Amino acid sequence: MTSDSEYYTFGPHKIHPKFIFYTTNLSYAMVNLRPVLPVIPKREVKRFGDLNADEICDLWLTTQLVSGKLESYHNASSLTLNIQDGPEAGQSVPHVHIHIVPRKFSDFARNDDIYDAMDENDRALKKHIDLDEKRMDRGFEEMAQEADEYTKLFF
Amino acid sequence: MTSDSEYYTFGPHKIHPKFIFYTTNLSYAMVNLRPVLPVIPKREVKRFGDLNADEICDLWLTTQLVSGKLESYHNASSLTLNIQDGPEAGQSVPHVHIHIVPRKFSDFARNDDIYDAMDENDRALKKHIDLDEKRMDRGFEEMAQEADEYTKLFF
Repeated sequence: MTSDSEYYTFGPHKIHPKFIFYTTNLSYAMVNLRPVLPVIPKREVKRFGDLNADEICDLWLTTQLVSGKLESYHNASSLTLNIQDGPEAGQSVPHVHIHIVPRKFSDFARNDDIYDAMDENDRALKKHIDLDEKRMDRGFEEMAQEADEYTKLFF
Repeated sequence: MTSDSEYYTFGPHKIHPKFIFYTTNLSYAMVNLRPVLPVIPKREVKRFGDLNADEICDLWLTTQLVSGKLESYHNASSLTLNIQDGPEAGQSVPHVHIHIVPRKFSDFARNDDIYDAMDENDRALKKHIDLDEKRMDRGFEEMAQEADEYTKLFF
């Protein structure tokens, strides 16, 4: 059993600690439905403009570190870094988050298809995120194992 | 005449100081072909991973300030914030830059069309940016005036 206090807050959702692979005092990074990896400020605020200076620096220094490790791990050569800041920009979960996507040559037929994939991912995430172990279509263990692999990148 | 030393560096391009509407020690924000507004670290590096901690904090604190002002100015309600970090992510100018796009309800038929617009903008920018005053299809004076309007937001 995981106690409620151990879960991470992502808007209205509770994220199991096994899905978190990197944390600082102010931010955390989690696995997700592929290929998108979110970095999230621990304090729940809706808009990028709501973050204070310490949170902004921490969030983006964390993103620099995490995205570099993930780019290497996935043998990628570029990164898409994106914030959908507000509902009119496509934000689905009302808690600021950065999308990291490691990119390779011709990984999407058109470069911008990545953003459709990102949105599809967010829709799927919303349906998926609050399910318990047995009802998740991507297995709990598979996601926990991916997070475990990523955790090792920071030793 | 503007002397070469007054121009801002954006990869291989020189940006006229009249197009810059906000600067810090480490970053600057410029007008562009609409609707995309870039924020750029003054030091010319290709990848987000090449920036040092001071540059990252400054770049994103600048982006927070500038994007908030621009969202209000354009009566928008959301923001798209994006980095195409490397050629496989669609980066056109090999100098890190954040794209800010103020967003409104139904401004694009599909939310993700914003990214096509962003790419189109970058392609147009590449053709446009090194032209002198007389050859620019968006008038030099019109762009300088837009920058002047934005400058007033920071008084």
